[in-house]
Amino acid sequence: MQSSLKDRFYNYIQTLQDAICDALEAVDGKAQFREDPWVRPEGGGGRTRVIENGAVFEKGGVNISAVHGALPESMQAYFGVKDADFFACGLSLVLHPESPMIPTVHANWRYFEMYDKQGNIKDQWFGGGQDLTPYYLYEEDARHFHDTCKRACDAHHPGFYPRYKTACDTYFWNSHREEARGVGGLFFDYCKKDEEMGMDDWYAFVTTVGDSFLEAYLPIVDKRKSLPWGAREREWQEIRRGRYVEFNLVHDKGTLFGLKTNGRIESILMSLPPQVQWRYDHHPEKGSPEEKLVRVLQQPRDWS
Amino acid sequence: MQSSLKDRFYNYIQTLQDAICDALEAVDGKAQFREDPWVRPEGGGGRTRVIENGAVFEKGGVNISAVHGALPESMQAYFGVKDADFFACGLSLVLHPESPMIPTVHANWRYFEMYDKQGNIKDQWFGGGQDLTPYYLYEEDARHFHDTCKRACDAHHPGFYPRYKTACDTYFWNSHREEARGVGGLFFDYCKKDEEMGMDDWYAFVTTVGDSFLEAYLPIVDKRKSLPWGAREREWQEIRRGRYVEFNLVHDKGTLFGLKTNGRIESILMSLPPQVQWRYDHHPEKGSPEEKLVRVLQQPRDWS
Repeated sequence: MQSSLKDRFYNYIQTLQDAICDALEAVDGKAQFREDPWVRPEGGGGRTRVIENGAVFEKGGVNISAVHGALPESMQAYFGVKDADFFACGLSLVLHPESPMIPTVHANWRYFEMYDKQGNIKDQWFGGGQDLTPYYLYEEDARHFHDTCKRACDAHHPGFYPRYKTACDTYFWNSHREEARGVGGLFFDYCKKDEEMGMDDWYAFVTTVGDSFLEAYLPIVDKRKSLPWGAREREWQEIRRGRYVEFNLVHDKGTLFGLKTNGRIESILMSLPPQVQWRYDHHPEKGSPEEKLVRVLQQPRDWS
Repeated sequence: MQSSLKDRFYNYIQTLQDAICDALEAVDGKAQFREDPWVRPEGGGGRTRVIENGAVFEKGGVNISAVHGALPESMQAYFGVKDADFFACGLSLVLHPESPMIPTVHANWRYFEMYDKQGNIKDQWFGGGQDLTPYYLYEEDARHFHDTCKRACDAHHPGFYPRYKTACDTYFWNSHREEARGVGGLFFDYCKKDEEMGMDDWYAFVTTVGDSFLEAYLPIVDKRKSLPWGAREREWQEIRRGRYVEFNLVHDKGTLFGLKTNGRIESILMSLPPQVQWRYDHHPEKGSPEEKLVRVLQQPRDWS
């Protein structure tokens, strides 16, 4: 008998969490992930894995969770449903390297089911994506990341890369700064059965994207990790990390949703960078590499 | 002829901005405020004053603004009105001392008028308050701050201090952390004409509170500025500053309102601390002064 989609996907993210953590520890060479299993009183729980003060990764988390039960009231209002139960599972990761020459990366792959009180599935969908936030822009890195995203998409549908690349630029827009959080990647949500894609097709797509993550990110880490940097680069990185915090706390739906619905705070806020600065009215020097980055963030580009 | 309330209050905050900046520069002894005048395209503007890298103040802003014009749509929806014009002016300040032994302080005093399209005043009110955020708790400092707040309140109404002290604890509650931002002070809003208080009485009350600010804060700075501190205290301060950022970006109505209605971003975000840390799942040692602070923040106390 074929196991259910939710069991298959939950198995997938468990295996992927192991694969990603193993690969990141190998690249780091110094720090190891520490694991925090946690239980959600209303049903389910998670396995938070955090790395800190590594040779490459200053702070990062690669977390999975699978939660279920009565759909919280705020979510019932959000989805416009009543008396529903739900199941949600996903993998979320954010990595903040110490070196300003290595980009921060974020990824998330998730699956959601909603049920009536008799336990019948009333709705189900996948969501997720992966995106890159450099402090110094190496255009070949942005191209490599996007090319990898595009290959994963193209294996499933020629329209997916352009659609989800644009959705990523739109979603990660720090509107109060009028700039993107980073150089983007993919963002998709509410991936449901339609004329072209069944749920098994979506499963295949999302897992292809998940499988592409290490290939999209690790070559960039390898290329940049031995580049020299000093106080100037570090300061710029910490100031830009401030924008990352602003996006996550002001605009990111997942973060706000977690904070306002009694999610596990430390697992949600592991996304915040370890050391951050805010200067009043800071502007990079004209013609500097710092200014070059900002110009690209203000006007998202095609990278593939 | 008696000048209008809005002119009187705007004159008051201009004078108060000068008085506060002069006094803070004298205490700092090294850095001076730099002034950024700005204009709001839709009407009005402000005078932002920022101090950075002082001997006492690592970063701080003492800003005034007076803006007017058509009430923005988001505010019309918020107040449940249509086709209204408005005038709003106020002074906002946040000071982040370098020393972890000196508390951060925030204060704000503001006045709002709403008009119909014929220019008739349809509504008017004062708001504001002042509150203290220590990193190490000296109970006598919290008592001094609250005593000064209470004296300012008691000069106008015996019920004000208990009411506005409680409102402050409620407003500055970092709900996702289940702790207060600091040890509180006063918070009041929608102070309108009623049986007991006319608008001139509210003006007198709010300006008494404004006049009490330096008396409430400066003696604490003087007492704590020569205390020794090291890496441990600094680290704790930077972690706690992270909670300050979380409150301001996730919960503070004024900040979110400004960010979502095209306010002057740099004047709004001057409230964010200069250097901040986020650690995964950080907890102070049992029995330490750091833990003592957290226990008090989890259960707001009476200080007067």
